[in-house]
Amino acid sequence: MVYRVGLLGLGTVGTGVVQMLQQPQHPLLQAVEIAAVGVRSLDKPRQVRIPPERLTTNLEQIVSDPEIDAVIELMGGLEPARSLILKAIDHGKPVITANKAVIARHGEEIFQAAAQAGVAVLLEAAVGGGIPIVQALQHSLRASRIQAVWGIVNGTTNFILSQMAQQGSSFAEALAQAQARGYAEADPSADVEGWDAADKIAILAGLAFGVAVPREAIPCEGIRNISSTDIRYAREWGYTFKLLAIAQRAAAQGSETVLDVRVHPTLLPVTHPLANVHGVDNAVWVQGDPLGQVVLAGPGAGQGPTASAVVGDLLTLRAHLQTGAYLPNPLWGFFGRAAALLPLAELESEFYVRVLAQDQPGVMGAIGTCFGRHRVSLESITQKECHQEQAEIVILTHTVREADCRQALAEIQQLPQVAAIPSLFRVLR
Amino acid sequence: MVYRVGLLGLGTVGTGVVQMLQQPQHPLLQAVEIAAVGVRSLDKPRQVRIPPERLTTNLEQIVSDPEIDAVIELMGGLEPARSLILKAIDHGKPVITANKAVIARHGEEIFQAAAQAGVAVLLEAAVGGGIPIVQALQHSLRASRIQAVWGIVNGTTNFILSQMAQQGSSFAEALAQAQARGYAEADPSADVEGWDAADKIAILAGLAFGVAVPREAIPCEGIRNISSTDIRYAREWGYTFKLLAIAQRAAAQGSETVLDVRVHPTLLPVTHPLANVHGVDNAVWVQGDPLGQVVLAGPGAGQGPTASAVVGDLLTLRAHLQTGAYLPNPLWGFFGRAAALLPLAELESEFYVRVLAQDQPGVMGAIGTCFGRHRVSLESITQKECHQEQAEIVILTHTVREADCRQALAEIQQLPQVAAIPSLFRVLR
Repeated sequence: MVYRVGLLGLGTVGTGVVQMLQQPQHPLLQAVEIAAVGVRSLDKPRQVRIPPERLTTNLEQIVSDPEIDAVIELMGGLEPARSLILKAIDHGKPVITANKAVIARHGEEIFQAAAQAGVAVLLEAAVGGGIPIVQALQHSLRASRIQAVWGIVNGTTNFILSQMAQQGSSFAEALAQAQARGYAEADPSADVEGWDAADKIAILAGLAFGVAVPREAIPCEGIRNISSTDIRYAREWGYTFKLLAIAQRAAAQGSETVLDVRVHPTLLPVTHPLANVHGVDNAVWVQGDPLGQVVLAGPGAGQGPTASAVVGDLLTLRAHLQTGAYLPNPLWGFFGRAAALLPLAELESEFYVRVLAQDQPGVMGAIGTCFGRHRVSLESITQKECHQEQAEIVILTHTVREADCRQALAEIQQLPQVAAIPSLFRVLR
Repeated sequence: MVYRVGLLGLGTVGTGVVQMLQQPQHPLLQAVEIAAVGVRSLDKPRQVRIPPERLTTNLEQIVSDPEIDAVIELMGGLEPARSLILKAIDHGKPVITANKAVIARHGEEIFQAAAQAGVAVLLEAAVGGGIPIVQALQHSLRASRIQAVWGIVNGTTNFILSQMAQQGSSFAEALAQAQARGYAEADPSADVEGWDAADKIAILAGLAFGVAVPREAIPCEGIRNISSTDIRYAREWGYTFKLLAIAQRAAAQGSETVLDVRVHPTLLPVTHPLANVHGVDNAVWVQGDPLGQVVLAGPGAGQGPTASAVVGDLLTLRAHLQTGAYLPNPLWGFFGRAAALLPLAELESEFYVRVLAQDQPGVMGAIGTCFGRHRVSLESITQKECHQEQAEIVILTHTVREADCRQALAEIQQLPQVAAIPSLFRVLR
């Protein structure tokens, strides 16, 4: 029996999906027919052959067409993607999506609608491209008590940081290289500000901890402020800079699950499994009890890997339908009640701080005293290079409360000998 | 409704499974009851509390008991595991197993029986411990055309090789350390001869390529012959030694799928993702089209990780049953028709060869001439250290036919200046 899918969007990933379905690798995909493709313009030249009568600009029609068995949403963005997904669900159609933004912000609404309608929503392609992290978190790894999920989930920023580390480039130079290679967009904000990574960690945290993570509440810092100086100093101490998306259990507060979820540049020991993920690759590190530590790594974006994940979901869906199931698999991504997030001020972390100060006796003492006054104990305070009587002082703290560290820095900023505090980054081990 | 499982075996992993089920992490596991545990001795002290009336030495009874909903086989070995699994299937019970040996050698029989009976057989724990590689190969990654699966799938040998590389130990010293830490058994043959890895690659190849791989036909070389000298020389050229389990498509011969499946020590560039997997960790590298390259890494054995994979399968099974399905998922590991394996003689590979010869003018020329006569082109031939007028000559070949290389070596062995050829290893990039 023919299985008729409707595609919303025929960009890079959509084209890849059509190519894969035109040469199906698995017998269960052979009966799949691309019955309709919703596009913005009918006249645009395409790299794949689709019968013209199957192309339409009427996307609403696809999601409500009774002849369509399943909808694959590859448009990206919040609207009209959200409304079309909800309408497809409303019409009893399972949905496969690669749209991290819409799941991160409207996942709860979408999964609730799907549960009520009794249809599946699959999203392997929304995080980590070809890396099968979504399915792993939904099934096998869920038997353990997951403690932490850390990810390098944005290829653009990982490329930029890799270039800066390997070539000694500045952020601006590395960004220009990423743009030249098509890894970064003309407006790179969603990547370099960490918003894309925050979307993805909201989804991974939802899967790993079975909760709904409020996307807007995730603290998010980008990589614009990392200088090649910081990268050099970090390396001297055995650290590398990565834009990490972090989700982990915070200390339990009563019966409530409190999660520590955040996205920011992080100093990671060069021996950490995530430290050796270079270029546009992505990787997700999962720590669970009694699972231990597992890492999944690979191409986090791009036509082939992302299309592979989309078609993998279609295969999963087809197989599911062959079993006589009349309900979606309960492990497929229904997020539970909302999680409380740990406020950043209450975070306990180690910090890397770089201070510019006059090269005078007593300045290190003055800085150390400020830290001490705010219960910030230090692992090291080192005077580095000196330019025109200005000294660079680099500090590594022990594990301290973030609020304490920031109060100490506010005071240090006021010291007469201190010119500026250009860098403050968190350190993870 | 209570879901009653019968456990066959209460060793390390069985104990871990009981502990996890006594503190279930997922709501779907809360209704699971350990109704019976088959053991060899009723009197042995146990680390978990099981009501004595549920312990039995009558394993046949468990697999035929109409009150038991599913069977978890954790005995290992071929018999009676095979017969008990088949009997459980025959009685309509789904089976979860961590037994790589029985699946590698009797997988076809077991999956055929399961298909006929319409029950599931799940085996995440059989390969890679807590690494969710089985499910990934069954579902998401299967949408791509898999080209190659390379794995470090035996933790004992990876520990030994890591010790040899990092400490400069001999094989015997490193093996003794592995035994002292409980990583290697008193008779370490199954690990160090590569038999365990061959079981696992037979399973991974079956999953990745949808074929039955004849376990006995897999060429298998262990790590006993690797010397610290070879490890040192390899490092000078930027290579590290790993016991790789390899399964990849060979050139198509007509319509038949010909697979290149083998287990042997391999020189791998230090930049390869598998080169940085150290100690008892496992990792599997999958290359597919259009997927690209994906690596899954983590604890390949041990109580917690393996129990986590077993309970993950139980979770998968429970979820499946909640959907109203009356057939097992067709992606769950039914191997297709038998694959033809490429004979090792026809393999095209690069080789590392170490020759002991008299330190005389002309010996390098004589060796080079022998290689040339057999169409073995060389990348480099280098005279290394010299002991008591005996020179060590190390050769790296270009990609050549294995049969040609071996014929050349048989001839080199006969050269009057050549004392021995202690090392011949394959090189992969």
